[in-house]
Amino acid sequence: MNQFLSWLKDIGPSGHVTYGNAIALATLLTAVAALLYVILTSRKLLRRDEGTDEMKRISRSIRIGAGAYLNRQYRIVGGFFGIMFLLLGSLSLLGYINRFVPFAFVTGGFFSALSGFVGMKIATASNARTAHACRTSLNSGLRVAFSAGSVMGLTVVGLGLLDISLWYIILKLGFRLPIEEITGAMITFGMGASSMALFARVGGGIFTKAADVGADLVGKVEAGIPEDDPRNPACIADNVGDNVGDVAGMGADLYESYVSSIISAAALGVAAMNEVPTVDSTRAVLVPLLLAAIGVIASIFGTFLIRTKENTSQKALLGALRRGTNFVAVVIAVMAYPVVRLALGKEFWGLYLAVLLGLVAGVLIGLCTEYFTSDTYKPTQHLASTSVTGTATEIIDGLGLGMLSTSLPILIVSGCLIGSFFLSGRGLTVGGEALTFSSSRGLYGIALSAVGMLSTLGITLATDAYGPVADNAGGIAQMAGLEETVRRRTDALDSLGNTTAATGKGFAIGSAALTALALIASYVERIKTIKPDLTLDLSIMNPTVLTGLFIGACLPFVFSALTMKAVGRAAQSIVLEVRRQFREITGILDGSKEPDYATCVDLCTKASLKEMILPAVTAVIAPILVGLVLGVNGVVGMLAGATVTGFLLAVYMANAGGAWDNAKKYIESGELGGKGSNAHKAAVVGDTVGDPFKDTAGPAINILIKLLSMVSIVFAAVVATFSLF
Amino acid sequence: MNQFLSWLKDIGPSGHVTYGNAIALATLLTAVAALLYVILTSRKLLRRDEGTDEMKRISRSIRIGAGAYLNRQYRIVGGFFGIMFLLLGSLSLLGYINRFVPFAFVTGGFFSALSGFVGMKIATASNARTAHACRTSLNSGLRVAFSAGSVMGLTVVGLGLLDISLWYIILKLGFRLPIEEITGAMITFGMGASSMALFARVGGGIFTKAADVGADLVGKVEAGIPEDDPRNPACIADNVGDNVGDVAGMGADLYESYVSSIISAAALGVAAMNEVPTVDSTRAVLVPLLLAAIGVIASIFGTFLIRTKENTSQKALLGALRRGTNFVAVVIAVMAYPVVRLALGKEFWGLYLAVLLGLVAGVLIGLCTEYFTSDTYKPTQHLASTSVTGTATEIIDGLGLGMLSTSLPILIVSGCLIGSFFLSGRGLTVGGEALTFSSSRGLYGIALSAVGMLSTLGITLATDAYGPVADNAGGIAQMAGLEETVRRRTDALDSLGNTTAATGKGFAIGSAALTALALIASYVERIKTIKPDLTLDLSIMNPTVLTGLFIGACLPFVFSALTMKAVGRAAQSIVLEVRRQFREITGILDGSKEPDYATCVDLCTKASLKEMILPAVTAVIAPILVGLVLGVNGVVGMLAGATVTGFLLAVYMANAGGAWDNAKKYIESGELGGKGSNAHKAAVVGDTVGDPFKDTAGPAINILIKLLSMVSIVFAAVVATFSLF
Repeated sequence: MNQFLSWLKDIGPSGHVTYGNAIALATLLTAVAALLYVILTSRKLLRRDEGTDEMKRISRSIRIGAGAYLNRQYRIVGGFFGIMFLLLGSLSLLGYINRFVPFAFVTGGFFSALSGFVGMKIATASNARTAHACRTSLNSGLRVAFSAGSVMGLTVVGLGLLDISLWYIILKLGFRLPIEEITGAMITFGMGASSMALFARVGGGIFTKAADVGADLVGKVEAGIPEDDPRNPACIADNVGDNVGDVAGMGADLYESYVSSIISAAALGVAAMNEVPTVDSTRAVLVPLLLAAIGVIASIFGTFLIRTKENTSQKALLGALRRGTNFVAVVIAVMAYPVVRLALGKEFWGLYLAVLLGLVAGVLIGLCTEYFTSDTYKPTQHLASTSVTGTATEIIDGLGLGMLSTSLPILIVSGCLIGSFFLSGRGLTVGGEALTFSSSRGLYGIALSAVGMLSTLGITLATDAYGPVADNAGGIAQMAGLEETVRRRTDALDSLGNTTAATGKGFAIGSAALTALALIASYVERIKTIKPDLTLDLSIMNPTVLTGLFIGACLPFVFSALTMKAVGRAAQSIVLEVRRQFREITGILDGSKEPDYATCVDLCTKASLKEMILPAVTAVIAPILVGLVLGVNGVVGMLAGATVTGFLLAVYMANAGGAWDNAKKYIESGELGGKGSNAHKAAVVGDTVGDPFKDTAGPAINILIKLLSMVSIVFAAVVATFSLF
Repeated sequence: MNQFLSWLKDIGPSGHVTYGNAIALATLLTAVAALLYVILTSRKLLRRDEGTDEMKRISRSIRIGAGAYLNRQYRIVGGFFGIMFLLLGSLSLLGYINRFVPFAFVTGGFFSALSGFVGMKIATASNARTAHACRTSLNSGLRVAFSAGSVMGLTVVGLGLLDISLWYIILKLGFRLPIEEITGAMITFGMGASSMALFARVGGGIFTKAADVGADLVGKVEAGIPEDDPRNPACIADNVGDNVGDVAGMGADLYESYVSSIISAAALGVAAMNEVPTVDSTRAVLVPLLLAAIGVIASIFGTFLIRTKENTSQKALLGALRRGTNFVAVVIAVMAYPVVRLALGKEFWGLYLAVLLGLVAGVLIGLCTEYFTSDTYKPTQHLASTSVTGTATEIIDGLGLGMLSTSLPILIVSGCLIGSFFLSGRGLTVGGEALTFSSSRGLYGIALSAVGMLSTLGITLATDAYGPVADNAGGIAQMAGLEETVRRRTDALDSLGNTTAATGKGFAIGSAALTALALIASYVERIKTIKPDLTLDLSIMNPTVLTGLFIGACLPFVFSALTMKAVGRAAQSIVLEVRRQFREITGILDGSKEPDYATCVDLCTKASLKEMILPAVTAVIAPILVGLVLGVNGVVGMLAGATVTGFLLAVYMANAGGAWDNAKKYIESGELGGKGSNAHKAAVVGDTVGDPFKDTAGPAINILIKLLSMVSIVFAAVVATFSLF
């Protein structure tokens, strides 16, 4: 027992008691608790009734389509991971990277894929159950859909904490590595997670939007049949798409964001606290871990707060969801102070304020997103009004709206950046010793603000991920010909999901920018460690930095272009197939014959898997190539350029797409002529253009900008040795 | 006589003979020669016949509309210049800027406006004459239209050289200022020119695209009448728009580009040659002046090379135009070597290569533009094919095409940047003395490559500016009901103009990026001069630089959004007005009654003048505000961010817009179903969306990025004194 207690105390190399092992163990237990919650909630969910035979049949088709897609996707991505494992293995044998890197890379990818896989399993198991529950009441529908969302949310954060704490324990206790090398190796599983996430987001994003665009263009626009009509040959593919893109893709994506923010903070924390003689630098690693663990526990409690009375209004439902997320945010805002104080000392309140700034900035960006994309505010209402003069004016206004909407998030992130840096880095006195201003500490503050922003992920993801489940439930209700009220209820849930998803996107984009900056700082630290004699000239007037900046800034443009054009091509093939079926299989439109759903699913699967490879591989190869030509300074320029334009494009695309979507819904609610009017037709085209913007290219950029940094970090030694400049 | 000769020799302060006065005088005489060419060509042009009474009447309406617009525009811009004059005057009384700045600012604006005004006058005088000449043959149509274009081209370069050489002579001989202060003051007239250009581009761009979009949406899409049909109430406004936007706007714009590239090279040259004891730094100022003068003389000769046989093919016409521009490019490529060698010494061949790189990069960017936007290549043909599946797929593909098309220009500019910098800056031995690598010299090289790129402007602008004249001629032919063949000929001229305009855009965008970078370097030099004790930390990892980068990168997005939304709003008002006229004035559509053209012109005028103020004023205020908050380091970050994303957005918008335009024309030529097919309808919408992209927001960004730098330079002392960080 005494031995265990002293193990928990974990005396650091400097002789200080760090409690590192205790905290790592606590984090591990938190991860286990989250996964237990997942198992218990899933079992409860699976005991619910799936409804009529027709509903079961439809749900089964969706499940099979989604499963088949993921199966094939994992095989292709598996090949990529195999090649990377061999490459990293050779580099580690040659001594350019440490021996854990290849294994860490693979586990990151594995857990990221697992997050998506579990989310997809539970979502496809819950769609019919949600539709069935909506036959009873809106409230019970919400409960089922939200349970599915919370399983997804806690899977992501649970697996994230599990991966991090396990590696920490293995490397620290098993291999007794110094803390610098532990955080260095951790970056690699971030790279694995990012690579997997990029494949999942891009592939899933292309699938879902190709199916959606294809189904809408022929079904709604040409044949004039409603959304999710069983006569549309692409309707099953459309619903499969929601699961592989919005669920599996998002799961892998947010797993990556979560893990990256924690490990980049850990890496910068070590650099920052190495300058402070009185604080063991292990403790700087524990702060983000503890913040994350507190967020997970608060999220579990938070999910129990989300319950409403029967027969409640839409507004009350939103209130219930908000209550849950606000609870978690407040818990973190309060608990972060003792965490920072106990771990590092009360002088470091600047770092606490950085966490708080991150939390607030996330909320503010979410509000901006809501302002620009919700039809209760002027921008989207004005956008809807431009569709009265035709498609062209609506597209022009939407593009303008998206571009304009970048302004506030940029100011918020800038404020958070400057505030975190200067509050955290400021000079202070610790244990009688005066420390001058330190930019390492400032950068650690920036990284911690990203952790703060994402610490609520367990619950925000739950409120986000339930959207696609409700969407699918609506599809099933429509296809199974359930009563009108059921569809109305699922629509209410779906539209609620759109609002909470806006907030979720704010967190995802904001944290991506901050994490990417933290990773650039980690890159610079890494270079200083492996090549201490290299003089860096990171001045923006250095032409290699400038050239890097130009090329990096161009990468998100090229990447978006590749994914958008992929969606366009895949959607075109769906359009042609649906037209062919309408033409060749007589009796589809009068309902006497069933269309051939499987061909559309298969077309989407093949197209999206083929199309995902080029953008994803580009993202891995570009930083290595730029590094080899322009050298370290050029890489830093490239990363900064990609982060800046990546952030702008991500916001632009997400908001333009969201506004087009909601402008269409606004008109469908009866405004400006309502459904079937010319304004509505224009708005449908706008919505279709926005689909790949907001659900394929936009979210994938968030991953891209971090993956570029992580690839650069992993290949730092190679680049520093062989570069031209 | 001897006194005059010794005056020409101009012994510099270091005792060297610089021939500075001789070269300034020669430049002045070149400017006079260009303006003489303008006067003679105009007189010859005006002696030509305007054709039928109907043609004269239409041409007169266009002239009156355009004149009235410019009149009102100049009054508003005059107000802005008045306020700025007072502001700059007060700052100069307080000692923050030198006493010439307010006057230089006003002359820059005046000459920029004059360039646009002369161009517009000659264009509106030539449209009917071109149409009439086309009744004879394609060749004589080309001659008239090209004469008008060459008047415009030589006005811009003539006035540019006049302004620069006059100020040089006044400040050097009249006030005997040292060369550093001369180049400093010159930047200010660049700022004046840029401000004027921004107003002209934005206002004119909104006018022309509002009229175009409005006319197309109701005329072509709703009423099904062809382009330029006299029954369309917006058709005169549309033709007025071509003149105020594509002619007056472009004239002011390119005047600004031309002057900015020369003065930024001059400013950096002084800094670079101050480090070389054996070379008088005045000589570094003379190099860009001489290059420009050679370009002007070559352009005058080049215009005489552009003549074809009667009854020649489209291809032969393009060949004739190419012959002219290639001649000028070769002259400069050859003559730049002796210029650099005689002015600075044969050791400086790196600077010669920089000029050459700029020239080549301009041509290459032009070729990329052509590849991505001409319907003889795959990208635009594929874009056209996506319109078969509807508007949405065509818009998605066009946006993707535009984004993808940024990749090659970025690589070309990066190559030019890196190449010019390292070739020019490399260590060398002058007069037995070894000079180490100098980044000042490298930056001077970058600036010279922009000068090289723009030195052919006299003739490239001529081949560019004749396009709108041909476009107008086509409009007049249609409205006056001339024979079918005339319209076919004007269309051939117009489409030829589109191809040459693509090359012109390449030069404009490429030179804007290089000039902007040179101006950022000038800003840093300026700060070092006025606050030698300020330590700059321009590292990209400095959070104020990063924040500046974020905000700067956002500016082109916000700016584009403002202009696009302005076009959307103005176009909507035109749509509503045209619809009203069709509804209320019975007999318009059967041709029995004439529509009310003047109201549409008036609506466009009011809307565009109102809408141009916010974006233009934003561009002036933003750098001052950012400077006051973030300080000098933040300003440099902002300028770099704006240049990088500005370049990307400019290319993206120009190419997406160009490709949509040509995809539509490709379908109209009979492909994919031809005119009236569903594919054509989709392509018309794409073209309409592309209009504000390529003709309003895109080109204005080129001005924006330079104006931001020049405002920063002029307000440098204020910012350095009062900034927060």
